[in-house]
Amino acid sequence: MLTLSLIGIGCGDPEQITLAAIRAINAADLVLIPRKGRQKSDLAELRRMICADVLTNEKTRIAEFDLPARDAGEADYHKGVDDWHDAVAATWSRAIERHLGGEGRVALLIWGDPSLYDSSLRIARRLNPMPAIDVIPGITSIQALCAAHALPLNEIGEPFLVTTGRRLREGGWPSGADTVVVMLDGGTAFESLDPAGIRIWWGAYLGMPDQIIVSGALADVGPRIAAVRQEARARHGWIMDSYVLKRNP
Amino acid sequence: MLTLSLIGIGCGDPEQITLAAIRAINAADLVLIPRKGRQKSDLAELRRMICADVLTNEKTRIAEFDLPARDAGEADYHKGVDDWHDAVAATWSRAIERHLGGEGRVALLIWGDPSLYDSSLRIARRLNPMPAIDVIPGITSIQALCAAHALPLNEIGEPFLVTTGRRLREGGWPSGADTVVVMLDGGTAFESLDPAGIRIWWGAYLGMPDQIIVSGALADVGPRIAAVRQEARARHGWIMDSYVLKRNP
Ligand SMILES: C[S@@+](CC[C@H](N)C(=O)[O-])C[C@H]1O[C@@H](n2cnc3c(N)ncnc32)[C@H](O)[C@@H]1O
Ligand SMILES: C[S@@+](CC[C@H](N)C(=O)[O-])C[C@H]1O[C@@H](n2cnc3c(N)ncnc32)[C@H](O)[C@@H]1O
Repeated sequence: MLTLSLIGIGCGDPEQITLAAIRAINAADLVLIPRKGRQKSDLAELRRMICADVLTNEKTRIAEFDLPARDAGEADYHKGVDDWHDAVAATWSRAIERHLGGEGRVALLIWGDPSLYDSSLRIARRLNPMPAIDVIPGITSIQALCAAHALPLNEIGEPFLVTTGRRLREGGWPSGADTVVVMLDGGTAFESLDPAGIRIWWGAYLGMPDQIIVSGALADVGPRIAAVRQEARARHGWIMDSYVLKRNP
Repeated sequence: MLTLSLIGIGCGDPEQITLAAIRAINAADLVLIPRKGRQKSDLAELRRMICADVLTNEKTRIAEFDLPARDAGEADYHKGVDDWHDAVAATWSRAIERHLGGEGRVALLIWGDPSLYDSSLRIARRLNPMPAIDVIPGITSIQALCAAHALPLNEIGEPFLVTTGRRLREGGWPSGADTVVVMLDGGTAFESLDPAGIRIWWGAYLGMPDQIIVSGALADVGPRIAAVRQEARARHGWIMDSYVLKRNP
């Protein structure tokens, strides 16, 4: 019997890890750590650091493996994702086979929480034979963002919507909510909105030593966020940022 | 100088606590624990248990205080909430004054995450003088629900909406998303929807020894969830539940 634990580790601050995650890491026979290419090596580094900090079980082995890259040339977005999930599943299978064989507990450390804009659960379902799956929740970037700003996410009794930069850019302010969380924005999709009446709470590298946060009326701080973002991205070689927008708050 | 730490402790499983939360609890001079009336004493109990488990600083004091009840007779919902926030702020001030005076670090242990359908941040802003506020993120019931079901919350690249039972009951399926998380449902608002094409992932007492989860096509499992919920509520005297709905998944 093979068990796969998908363990949320928070989104940058090693102290965001939970006791349940520490227990699950130490219960694993094998922890698999993906190498993701140069510019994201800070992220692989966090996983290594967490293992070094919390792993006390001497029998737990750690193995690194190379993740296949997504085919950016594939015009059909969903087909591209689908192919990539197959390729990743094959890579996991080989790494598990090589380091563990058909039995035991394998752990993967998941950025933030495994349920939020993360493909691991979908990839896990493609493994053959399918392992038992065990999910340990982790602090998401949404919580880290709100904590950094001391921001209540929802208005009292009101809904909020979580969406992607691409959707905001293509569809404008989404229907259904006056509070919107934007993730996976490769750029500054907020610049596509008429800023009148909108406030923004933006954060990059949340929970990390280089955390940056900016908030205010979108008309005032939008251009500043765009500039800060560009500068930080150039300096680090990569950026991870998210933001909350509120209309007429 | 007074600092108020709002510390997310997860939503039922004491192991959902993060290392940052443990550090913050131990950095406090005073931990305030609200007593909330008989049927919710299990919840106060979790806070006491967490303190007993993780507190190693002998100088940290723990004090319990009585929370005022919300005036259920107030017809204007927002006025009722507003008055209640004022009353709670006054109670916090008195407890802080009594146990600590004007200086030091006070901690409040917040169910789930302080930014999600929780009033502590709003109440804290009413304290006079206003303390410095420090927020430690916690695992929310949304993550606990998805973990229990091993459910990816969003579809690939798609948005999701988080809302309340009241809104679902009054407004039907919300616009803007095909994935909806429902919290704060005093009943079974999902029964007000036409179940055709809808799937549900429901959970009560998530992370607790009595956790119950049910999932399936809403038409099939809706009546069972309603029955299980009623029985569990009668047995415990209270219930906390949440669910994810997906349309044409
Ligand atoms: C593939 S998703 C993974 C989300 C993750 N599972 C979570 O729970 O937060 C990556 C997106 O999460 C957000 N994100 C993750 N970590 C972040 C951080 N430390 N600071 C700011 N945004 C972050 C960004 O919007 C980024 O584009
Ligand atoms: C006042 S809100 C607080 C939410 C909390 N701050 C969080 O982060 O989850 C209470 C609602 O959260 C959900 N909830 C909290 N704990 C739960 C649990 N252990 N199981 C199921 N639902 C829970 C229920 O929908 C409940 O009505």
